[in-house]
Amino acid sequence: MYFEEGELLMQTVYILSGPAGVGKSTTSTALVDALKNSAYISGDDVSHMHVRGRQKPWESKSELSLIWNNILSLTRNFVLNGIDVVIDYVTFPDEAYWLRDKLMDLTQNVVYVVYVVLMTDHETLLKRDQLRIPEHQMGERCLILIQEFNESGLNRKYLLDTDQKNVDEINLVIDDIMNNKQYSLDD
Amino acid sequence: MYFEEGELLMQTVYILSGPAGVGKSTTSTALVDALKNSAYISGDDVSHMHVRGRQKPWESKSELSLIWNNILSLTRNFVLNGIDVVIDYVTFPDEAYWLRDKLMDLTQNVVYVVYVVLMTDHETLLKRDQLRIPEHQMGERCLILIQEFNESGLNRKYLLDTDQKNVDEINLVIDDIMNNKQYSLDD
Repeated sequence: MYFEEGELLMQTVYILSGPAGVGKSTTSTALVDALKNSAYISGDDVSHMHVRGRQKPWESKSELSLIWNNILSLTRNFVLNGIDVVIDYVTFPDEAYWLRDKLMDLTQNVVYVVYVVLMTDHETLLKRDQLRIPEHQMGERCLILIQEFNESGLNRKYLLDTDQKNVDEINLVIDDIMNNKQYSLDD
Repeated sequence: MYFEEGELLMQTVYILSGPAGVGKSTTSTALVDALKNSAYISGDDVSHMHVRGRQKPWESKSELSLIWNNILSLTRNFVLNGIDVVIDYVTFPDEAYWLRDKLMDLTQNVVYVVYVVLMTDHETLLKRDQLRIPEHQMGERCLILIQEFNESGLNRKYLLDTDQKNVDEINLVIDDIMNNKQYSLDD
């Protein structure tokens, strides 16, 4: 939560992005727990609410649009109830800006958006992917996602390197995400 | 999916209610799978998106209101994308009517709402409750919920008795829910 001039209480929406296997869920869970009044939105869970007739969101614009509209609706409702939100999903810069602009409209600007793209090297990513249960393994798509982030026009200030981060270091990562102004989604 | 006069394509929203332990999840999952293009909304999952600062929805009106607004937003988005919705949650008649009226407004009446309250006897309910992992056991609250349904002014036409229903009979239950007009939420 942030106070603006005039003591207007604002809610913070944290978008934790990055390729599959980079540690988004672990980091998001720890961040939600570090906040006082907070909600956790897993983009994958929202995506899988559509069961029959669902298409892969990376192959269908309408499926991806539905997911983002659902994330937007939930986030709006939480923010208007005074709750900070952590969104755990593969989010490209244009999607983060779209969400921020829509939230500004829907909440009369009482929202502050933080955008963090977790990143690590190819080898670590593939190693972590292989630790998942087979149905959840992404394989090649992990690397395709890194390339897509590289080609997305992402400002490097939003990158957070998680190489060699172990469990003890997660508190430092959370502290960085909560207090480092470089992750504030601007321009 | 239902066709009205004039071939207007409508979406169906199924609200599967009833006390804890009555088999809402099992029935909802089977119903979602039986539909062609469908989404599954677990009220409990939506409720637990609020992690820190969450209050028990049966003790806090604002928490319950937040949950229903989130369910409404998601349902609206699915319906407007041509997707049928199955809502799995303890839903009292006044909540079902509230949801239907809001959906009618938000979707220009392209929605048909089915309301089913699964019910079984006390003994079966407590037996099923004890099969859950301890953290998910509701104990006494199962029986309190039955009493609350009895006192809710529920029209008995919405009741679906699941006594002695075994796994083989679930297809009959699904068929009943999909085709029996008595469950249509009216008046």
